[in-house]
Amino acid sequence: MYFASDNAGPVHPQVMDFMVKSNTGYAQPYGEDLLMDQVRDRLRDIFEAPEAAIYLVALGTAANSLALATLTQPWQTIFCSDVAHIHVDECNAPEFYTGGAKLTLVRGGDKMTAESLRACIEGEGNRGVHGPERGPVSITQVTERGSVYSIDELTALTKVAKSYDLPVHMDGARFANALVTMNASPADMTWRLGVDAVTFGGTKNGLMGVEAVIFFDPKHAWEFELRRKRAAHLFSKHRYLSAQMLAYLTDDLWLNSARQANANCARLAQGLQTAGAELLHQPDANMIYAKFPRRIHVRLRDAGAIYEFEHPKQGDPDEMLSCRLVCDWSISPDLIDEFLSFF
Amino acid sequence: MYFASDNAGPVHPQVMDFMVKSNTGYAQPYGEDLLMDQVRDRLRDIFEAPEAAIYLVALGTAANSLALATLTQPWQTIFCSDVAHIHVDECNAPEFYTGGAKLTLVRGGDKMTAESLRACIEGEGNRGVHGPERGPVSITQVTERGSVYSIDELTALTKVAKSYDLPVHMDGARFANALVTMNASPADMTWRLGVDAVTFGGTKNGLMGVEAVIFFDPKHAWEFELRRKRAAHLFSKHRYLSAQMLAYLTDDLWLNSARQANANCARLAQGLQTAGAELLHQPDANMIYAKFPRRIHVRLRDAGAIYEFEHPKQGDPDEMLSCRLVCDWSISPDLIDEFLSFF
Amino acid sequence: MYFASDNAGPVHPQVMDFMVKSNTGYAQPYGEDLLMDQVRDRLRDIFEAPEAAIYLVALGTAANSLALATLTQPWQTIFCSDVAHIHVDECNAPEFYTGGAKLTLVRGGDKMTAESLRACIEGEGNRGVHGPERGPVSITQVTERGSVYSIDELTALTKVAKSYDLPVHMDGARFANALVTMNASPADMTWRLGVDAVTFGGTKNGLMGVEAVIFFDPKHAWEFELRRKRAAHLFSKHRYLSAQMLAYLTDDLWLNSARQANANCARLAQGLQTAGAELLHQPDANMIYAKFPRRIHVRLRDAGAIYEFEHPKQGDPDEMLSCRLVCDWSISPDLIDEFLSFF
Amino acid sequence: MYFASDNAGPVHPQVMDFMVKSNTGYAQPYGEDLLMDQVRDRLRDIFEAPEAAIYLVALGTAANSLALATLTQPWQTIFCSDVAHIHVDECNAPEFYTGGAKLTLVRGGDKMTAESLRACIEGEGNRGVHGPERGPVSITQVTERGSVYSIDELTALTKVAKSYDLPVHMDGARFANALVTMNASPADMTWRLGVDAVTFGGTKNGLMGVEAVIFFDPKHAWEFELRRKRAAHLFSKHRYLSAQMLAYLTDDLWLNSARQANANCARLAQGLQTAGAELLHQPDANMIYAKFPRRIHVRLRDAGAIYEFEHPKQGDPDEMLSCRLVCDWSISPDLIDEFLSFF
Repeated sequence: MYFASDNAGPVHPQVMDFMVKSNTGYAQPYGEDLLMDQVRDRLRDIFEAPEAAIYLVALGTAANSLALATLTQPWQTIFCSDVAHIHVDECNAPEFYTGGAKLTLVRGGDKMTAESLRACIEGEGNRGVHGPERGPVSITQVTERGSVYSIDELTALTKVAKSYDLPVHMDGARFANALVTMNASPADMTWRLGVDAVTFGGTKNGLMGVEAVIFFDPKHAWEFELRRKRAAHLFSKHRYLSAQMLAYLTDDLWLNSARQANANCARLAQGLQTAGAELLHQPDANMIYAKFPRRIHVRLRDAGAIYEFEHPKQGDPDEMLSCRLVCDWSISPDLIDEFLSFF
Repeated sequence: MYFASDNAGPVHPQVMDFMVKSNTGYAQPYGEDLLMDQVRDRLRDIFEAPEAAIYLVALGTAANSLALATLTQPWQTIFCSDVAHIHVDECNAPEFYTGGAKLTLVRGGDKMTAESLRACIEGEGNRGVHGPERGPVSITQVTERGSVYSIDELTALTKVAKSYDLPVHMDGARFANALVTMNASPADMTWRLGVDAVTFGGTKNGLMGVEAVIFFDPKHAWEFELRRKRAAHLFSKHRYLSAQMLAYLTDDLWLNSARQANANCARLAQGLQTAGAELLHQPDANMIYAKFPRRIHVRLRDAGAIYEFEHPKQGDPDEMLSCRLVCDWSISPDLIDEFLSFF
Repeated sequence: MYFASDNAGPVHPQVMDFMVKSNTGYAQPYGEDLLMDQVRDRLRDIFEAPEAAIYLVALGTAANSLALATLTQPWQTIFCSDVAHIHVDECNAPEFYTGGAKLTLVRGGDKMTAESLRACIEGEGNRGVHGPERGPVSITQVTERGSVYSIDELTALTKVAKSYDLPVHMDGARFANALVTMNASPADMTWRLGVDAVTFGGTKNGLMGVEAVIFFDPKHAWEFELRRKRAAHLFSKHRYLSAQMLAYLTDDLWLNSARQANANCARLAQGLQTAGAELLHQPDANMIYAKFPRRIHVRLRDAGAIYEFEHPKQGDPDEMLSCRLVCDWSISPDLIDEFLSFF
Repeated sequence: MYFASDNAGPVHPQVMDFMVKSNTGYAQPYGEDLLMDQVRDRLRDIFEAPEAAIYLVALGTAANSLALATLTQPWQTIFCSDVAHIHVDECNAPEFYTGGAKLTLVRGGDKMTAESLRACIEGEGNRGVHGPERGPVSITQVTERGSVYSIDELTALTKVAKSYDLPVHMDGARFANALVTMNASPADMTWRLGVDAVTFGGTKNGLMGVEAVIFFDPKHAWEFELRRKRAAHLFSKHRYLSAQMLAYLTDDLWLNSARQANANCARLAQGLQTAGAELLHQPDANMIYAKFPRRIHVRLRDAGAIYEFEHPKQGDPDEMLSCRLVCDWSISPDLIDEFLSFF
């Protein structure tokens, strides 16, 4: 019963099969492989963006940091949620990659609102050379708490950013999970709203380790390539990254896996609510923040369930403790039911 | 007929098989997987270094840059050959990772000698705060020109470094190829000589993309872990890196593949010499720098041979043109003979 | 009527005289001048810290950034007030100098409390390699709003820092102004409480541009010297920095100037209160944040008064608008009375 | 008898007087002082460059590093002489300020030639993302060995740079000394040849510590201002920098001082030659590299002469030892004659 993250499950068999199938003879290294041409074509189709510059790296932090560094000057500040992955979980990678830019945290604990974002932008960038200049806005979709921004919410945020001429980055580590929830097209969720760069995640949705970075304006292409190489994120045997991404984009695997993950999550959420647990955020995708009594946590832990929660063992058995539960595509309904049976 | 590099061939089937076999259920992410424990044990055994701190990253440039950054202060200079990969082929990654350290180039075009190294060290580090301070010495083994430092040569170099109390890094992108040539143990080639950190390559010898970084003194461990994470080189699905490295170290695959690559290279070198080509460096491992007439280059190119050489088409057909030919484990004797048939 | 800052007034005549007097013949460059020996001795005496490493730079931002960089790893976060100069007014200099460390802002709008600091520290540094590690605590004394931490308040803050083994930096751009308010010794305000490094300001108190950086533990000395040189803050004609600081420390000029500035401020504060203005912070030193009606602002501005305030001209004449008023040593009581006459 | 450097002498009395005269009342801080307007006008006149962006910093290393950082991307390499100050004497400041760019050293020991520069440029920048890209060319005028590039030599160098579309920086720490030797106008020596940015030195020619950075294309202005602030090189009490530079540019003080320094040097050089010393470089400005017997060195040292030379005391009294002798404006003919009397 592993609900700790969607970054620890297996590679989807279709992906692995295609990697094995691609493992023959030589292929041009460093992103010059023929599979990459197909990846590029597919993603341009999917995003309805025939000019987009598209690159693969193996890690989400690399994708975020390199994309942001391309959009940010070292004397600027990046606006993001105070629980954004780029702030909380990347060990200062954005600061490293940008050469020392700042992150301005939009308070609220998860989703940014147009108002909170605007207030933060207003608070920065008006001190001439003394303060940081305003830099990009980074939006996490699915959010770090498992919610999905609606098109209206995204529109409001990007409108604010654009009213200050700021570039917009979307951390889409769970892009597919958001998309299948939103019932929108990739273009609707991104460049049509003014998003400039997207981290298009694959790793949390069945790949071994591949994220695409997409710039809708190809003027960023060459700088990104140099940044990627300088940061040691350009793979010589790049074809295996391409193969993963190509399998992902074939026969809607990316969407189907996300649907499966989200459905698993919905089943779990419903079960939790039925069992009296409290949901702390709207579980729009594949991640739940919930609260239920310590005694159930203890029982689950004793049975081998693995997930993030605080203060497990000691204390009042009825105390409500919060936890995070993540479902990926590979989890089975049976496992979810087994988990719920402990309530 | 692909002789352009050893970074474009297929993943060894035993490695791919083991990756597939490892693709089941959940595994702790971020290097906490159980396979990594086995990798660590194996490498400690192989290096006779039970205390060594051992990490995996996916790229050689990452391994070099992170290892060097851990050993270097930003106001220091790293001593290396003027054709070292860290200088020539990493797009300033060492400068980026170290926060702006300098590289002092030991002239000579490939191998450093104790004398040339000492002269360079003497030339730096004696201007107090004004000049850079002396930093690590980085030795590439196999060299960038396909030669292997003998134990005596390595001893002389490390002795110089240690006489100035400088740390020593070994870029062993082709560590296995050097080892099988030298008839030495990994420990003999490294820590017994005073080497502090090794980039232990796998990618050029049959892996998909894994290099180990080994610090013989574990005091560097935590700093390296933070640097790796901050640089976005810590994989969530780390087990697939572990699986590659474990397969590599099982049943002497790493040594056998290197022997095969070197034998391929020797066959090619001998054929070239018989055919009147001039060898520019001693081809001790799996890489040849050779010179032969343009007309043969043209013929080979026309037949589809791929390898690095200068000024291919135009000019005097008898002009001797230099080129680089690299053999990996996957190349067949037949292919080599086919290549030689064009002479 | 210039009340905009204490960084725009003249150099104290005693300082200028001593600079002129020092302008004869040659002096060893780069901090090797004989005057620096006297500066070092004086500051060690004043701080009762015979081992302290002491350096001069010309700017407060340089002093803060270099001191913090010496105490901070790039993967750490610095804890400071959300209005700290290092956050608000240094254009990402701390991020630049530390190689990309983060600043964690202790909310509250000025003074940190032990509780707010502890909560911030607790919130960081417990995510292993994923989050930033905990770095130094930086305390601004006099605060950015013109208040002075009492010894009890400082004790509480440093106790928290030390309970996490974190180094403590004091941004003492207005160190003298705080000291004369506190009726404490420099040692009491710093190393006796666990402060590790101090920016000992001079520029805002009558110097042309000199701040001392003091490390109570000399182990930081050599690294600081290299950082200072690498950042281009080591003056060749260093004697003129030494001369300023020496004049400052002679005959209690530093304390007398601070007393004068604080007395000026007290006169102004009292006058403002008498005139019905609202004081927004306790004006403990030489800086006032006050609120009074727009019409008075307009009148003052029309009369040529210069100081920071918001939305000057338009709007309801009775609207209370906030402003900042700073007094340095050079301002005369007459000028203050003239200012007050507009109420 | 101080001949060690031109960075240790006194401030010219006219400069000091003007600083004293400027020490009255308030002045807008951070480069907004009225004196700076005059400085800007004067330098634009002198350089016949009405659009030039002009800034002051206090140190030559800051001027060089900030100017180069503005012209260089972190993945580029800067071309300079192998004895350039930016390489030898700035403790990796250019690498720090550029965010990790490389320096490619044009061998030759002092002056670059068009051929040697072209060969270095050809050697870099042709490896796509793998190697560094080509960045600016930095020319030191007066060179580090005391020679002055002729207009023809400068033309040849800048032509090479421009044929690769590379920006050109001139480290003019001794700009005035070069100018009075060359009998050329500032414009002839700079932008008419394609120089993009100049470090216009003052510190080595009688100022306390001021260098101007001049960009002939004002598009660099805002970036430079942010870089200067972020690096803590923007003075609050900037008027004292302005005052120095204004005095320097008044009544040809800058040129007269340089003429005096050069004349002193010529007197010394002639005396040395008459006395049988060997000159190692053409002493075109105010610096001599010479060789003469150890016994004379010993005698001079015993008499209190201070200058840079190697291996002073021990060894064969007739051995020829090299040394550096620098004259600034403040040195008297008598002192030179006294020095020569030891031969």
